[in-house]
Amino acid sequence: MEEPYRWKVYLSGEIHSSWREEIARGVERTALPVELTGPVTHHAASDDCGTEILGAETSSFWKDHKGAGINAIRTRTLIRQADLVVVRFGDKYRQWNAAFDAGFAAALGKPLITLHDENLDHALKEVDAAACATARDPEQVVKVLQYVITQT
Amino acid sequence: MEEPYRWKVYLSGEIHSSWREEIARGVERTALPVELTGPVTHHAASDDCGTEILGAETSSFWKDHKGAGINAIRTRTLIRQADLVVVRFGDKYRQWNAAFDAGFAAALGKPLITLHDENLDHALKEVDAAACATARDPEQVVKVLQYVITQT
Amino acid sequence: MEEPYRWKVYLSGEIHSSWREEIARGVERTALPVELTGPVTHHAASDDCGTEILGAETSSFWKDHKGAGINAIRTRTLIRQADLVVVRFGDKYRQWNAAFDAGFAAALGKPLITLHDENLDHALKEVDAAACATARDPEQVVKVLQYVITQT
Amino acid sequence: MEEPYRWKVYLSGEIHSSWREEIARGVERTALPVELTGPVTHHAASDDCGTEILGAETSSFWKDHKGAGINAIRTRTLIRQADLVVVRFGDKYRQWNAAFDAGFAAALGKPLITLHDENLDHALKEVDAAACATARDPEQVVKVLQYVITQT
Amino acid sequence: MEEPYRWKVYLSGEIHSSWREEIARGVERTALPVELTGPVTHHAASDDCGTEILGAETSSFWKDHKGAGINAIRTRTLIRQADLVVVRFGDKYRQWNAAFDAGFAAALGKPLITLHDENLDHALKEVDAAACATARDPEQVVKVLQYVITQT
Amino acid sequence: MEEPYRWKVYLSGEIHSSWREEIARGVERTALPVELTGPVTHHAASDDCGTEILGAETSSFWKDHKGAGINAIRTRTLIRQADLVVVRFGDKYRQWNAAFDAGFAAALGKPLITLHDENLDHALKEVDAAACATARDPEQVVKVLQYVITQT
Amino acid sequence: MEEPYRWKVYLSGEIHSSWREEIARGVERTALPVELTGPVTHHAASDDCGTEILGAETSSFWKDHKGAGINAIRTRTLIRQADLVVVRFGDKYRQWNAAFDAGFAAALGKPLITLHDENLDHALKEVDAAACATARDPEQVVKVLQYVITQT
Amino acid sequence: MEEPYRWKVYLSGEIHSSWREEIARGVERTALPVELTGPVTHHAASDDCGTEILGAETSSFWKDHKGAGINAIRTRTLIRQADLVVVRFGDKYRQWNAAFDAGFAAALGKPLITLHDENLDHALKEVDAAACATARDPEQVVKVLQYVITQT
Repeated sequence: MEEPYRWKVYLSGEIHSSWREEIARGVERTALPVELTGPVTHHAASDDCGTEILGAETSSFWKDHKGAGINAIRTRTLIRQADLVVVRFGDKYRQWNAAFDAGFAAALGKPLITLHDENLDHALKEVDAAACATARDPEQVVKVLQYVITQT
Repeated sequence: MEEPYRWKVYLSGEIHSSWREEIARGVERTALPVELTGPVTHHAASDDCGTEILGAETSSFWKDHKGAGINAIRTRTLIRQADLVVVRFGDKYRQWNAAFDAGFAAALGKPLITLHDENLDHALKEVDAAACATARDPEQVVKVLQYVITQT
Repeated sequence: MEEPYRWKVYLSGEIHSSWREEIARGVERTALPVELTGPVTHHAASDDCGTEILGAETSSFWKDHKGAGINAIRTRTLIRQADLVVVRFGDKYRQWNAAFDAGFAAALGKPLITLHDENLDHALKEVDAAACATARDPEQVVKVLQYVITQT
Repeated sequence: MEEPYRWKVYLSGEIHSSWREEIARGVERTALPVELTGPVTHHAASDDCGTEILGAETSSFWKDHKGAGINAIRTRTLIRQADLVVVRFGDKYRQWNAAFDAGFAAALGKPLITLHDENLDHALKEVDAAACATARDPEQVVKVLQYVITQT
Repeated sequence: MEEPYRWKVYLSGEIHSSWREEIARGVERTALPVELTGPVTHHAASDDCGTEILGAETSSFWKDHKGAGINAIRTRTLIRQADLVVVRFGDKYRQWNAAFDAGFAAALGKPLITLHDENLDHALKEVDAAACATARDPEQVVKVLQYVITQT
Repeated sequence: MEEPYRWKVYLSGEIHSSWREEIARGVERTALPVELTGPVTHHAASDDCGTEILGAETSSFWKDHKGAGINAIRTRTLIRQADLVVVRFGDKYRQWNAAFDAGFAAALGKPLITLHDENLDHALKEVDAAACATARDPEQVVKVLQYVITQT
Repeated sequence: MEEPYRWKVYLSGEIHSSWREEIARGVERTALPVELTGPVTHHAASDDCGTEILGAETSSFWKDHKGAGINAIRTRTLIRQADLVVVRFGDKYRQWNAAFDAGFAAALGKPLITLHDENLDHALKEVDAAACATARDPEQVVKVLQYVITQT
Repeated sequence: MEEPYRWKVYLSGEIHSSWREEIARGVERTALPVELTGPVTHHAASDDCGTEILGAETSSFWKDHKGAGINAIRTRTLIRQADLVVVRFGDKYRQWNAAFDAGFAAALGKPLITLHDENLDHALKEVDAAACATARDPEQVVKVLQYVITQT
């Protein structure tokens, strides 16, 4: 049975490690029909886009608000289009936006994969319980994609 | 990460200034993968389409009703297909249809960008509060599109 | 056939005339099982609620933004609960929020009644075309409610 | 205009401080027609319910999984019924479940209020941008409820 | 197991025979917890309500349009609230509105019962195929209600 | 502004006249980017498909039921995919399935065009009131499509 | 925090053992605010209702079809109203309708509890994976309800 | 009228017989524009994928749980994308996942075809009643597809 469909996989969460690149390399290596999307991963650009584009703010709250609004145009649209959402949690930062994305995707009925180390298991138990799978490293995510898409 | 998707952006509102053309030029200049759509922008055609196509009316109310019905086929369909809706408000005319489109899009969960001068801020506060961003000129809309789509 | 259900009717738009009170009196006079709701109609309170409750802002844009956010909690919730939305347009002010409410309600499949004078017909043609009825005075709205609910 | 409806307000997040009680006292003091709901707030019970009720697990991951599944029956149901969701973030713990709830509620179109100190503003910018209001203390939440429900 | 819920049953279609009254009598006789609703069944009122309430029209098309708009406020609202929709087809008139109601209810996932004689079977095959049951007389509808609600 | 999208237009109703062909010829003549779909229009095949494919039935009711079930696979799928639904009513036959399709499409928020002679106006007033336009001949439908898609 | 809401819990599946009664007794014993619903549990009535009410059939397939249609009016309506669906699987019979109910409820976003012995674990792994909890006896279901509703 | 659309048909159920291959051959023979999808049909892979990819489990319940979660990523996504779902039931195994898929698809409004022998009719009556057609062999499914897509 042919499987020509290109799966749209949204990669949410941590932007300070190379996990997206590792998944991208795995997808390329296995030649999977997968289109990877995600948030803007350039940290400074993501923080400053609001005031850079729409004008300066004196209050940091509204500076953040402007930037978050613009970033939401990208993230909401791509999450709505996604067939699968992978959410990565790491030790650094609070990553509340990643958990927010997970809740948003869950309410839309999107399958979720969480990706994190065991030391975060207890803190992430509600998010993991809403996920189809919890992976420990990017290679496991690639293997899940491979299995799900190619049956091998 | 490749970004081949063509974003569908609906441009609602004011049809008496050149803001749509400015956004179109900006999209072309930056070679963004964006498909711009919008209402019929030929004012007389938009007003007369009902009676032109479906027959004359003696009452102006029903003439308008017929025309608005036909225009709604276009606007509702394109708004439903849009990834993003930009709504432009200007000083001339009441543009209630633009605000209606904004409410319609908001209820469907579509991201909104409002585009207007500061002197309309107070009158548009409810619409702006439902938007992801408020831009002051078409170039800012193009920059938001560029950032959202290309991360730059 | 008994009709015990209390219809929830949301009254959106103009807050500077007495049209809401006239509908309320008509509903009382005819003893209709109708629960009327609407936005906060105290103009100053509606404008200032954001900064009054959540703290001052130096920018009028963000002052408006804060207030509009709080008002949206009320308006969205009551519109979602409504069986019918009546939207009043008058000559004063732009009332873009009323048109926004109309679009929001239309996208949710709520029946709409618009209420305005004939001189606004052309400007409101798209909103009227999305409505089940266009009334010219509050008494007509009451009569529609009476007919729809009691068959008389 | 009478306002007999009892608003259902879900209080998500932090379970180690008294913010829920403060909101409850404020609601009682102001006699607001509000029904407050929320997750199970007994920390140990919330952690252990899975194995307590459904049997022991040797792995902490599956113990957590069982408990989170049961807690989700409560939280999802009450969030779906809520008119408004208040999400509290504090300094202790990661509170990813609170951010997950916020995303879940946002995707369902529920109005959100976030409640946190200014030092968390940057980390919560995406969640705040999806909210109708950001409050700094429980009293502000009560005042928003009072204004939204009673117009005063 | 107690069954206190009052089922909302919408009776759509033919308004020239006594089938609604027969179902109402059966519901009363069997003391079923059922709330029967339906369109305005006074034929002349239903035809004239638009111009009676909102003003005369010179064109019969727009007279009908106005009336149908008002009637739709009632029918759409009650169909959306219904747990079950019964649609009656008879030999007289075309009853396209009944078939429209059936399609509308089917798309909303409402269970349908059709009620008609065998001579209409072929003409109604698509509507019957979308229904949970096809009854031949009002008493069968009452028996279905009784069985469905009381298990007897 | 480029308009490359191919509109999907479902043609429901009467299968005994050449209106579908006339619309198809008009679409071809004007080179509109339109994909026309519709039910199976071979009357005998449409009536017999159930028993032809799935085995004979002794009862005409169940023969019809089998056929209508299979036809529904086609009609429901194509209506769900359609951007616009045109529903044709003629003098012959009851065409309850056409009215059912119209109700189904309306509940999904699809724009409708009805197509019928004036002598059916009163009988179709509820369906017409749910439509964006009522056309009198296929050429008017083509003109609406041309205007809606090409602005001319 | 008061918890006055009466939870609607649908009990799907096996009708040959006393598990429903055990849950009902547990609910009564613990005085939980729970309204239990379920399918018609009288096996012969459930099998024969179609032909009993709507007339005899010569084919057993259509006899079953008629009965299943009527039973679906009850089951679909009550599942749509339920806050929680409990699905019981036993050793006897195939209980495909129970698994169908589980899939139906899952697609609607309803929380599920499965109830079955360990020997069915492998056969039910897909259904269990869609559930919030897997219970082994009715008492565990009661304890989950008690914890979820009363926090104890 | 051209029919270029490629129908997406999901084949759910039995993985131990050659029915999928027979449908695939029929589709190829008739050159139908159909894209067949389905679950992973390699039984051992389907059972073991969870622990193979994500790590071993000591408990068979959690091994099954992990595998079912991963398989759900595939099945839910493909069922959501399908235009039509065919569900095959055989004599071997309980196939509760097939019935679950049928319920899931039915709640999403997807047309269903069931495929099984007459000896399973009574056990499958609820699932059959939710289906558009019940076929007895793969060739009938192909004929339904051919008729539905090509009108012949």
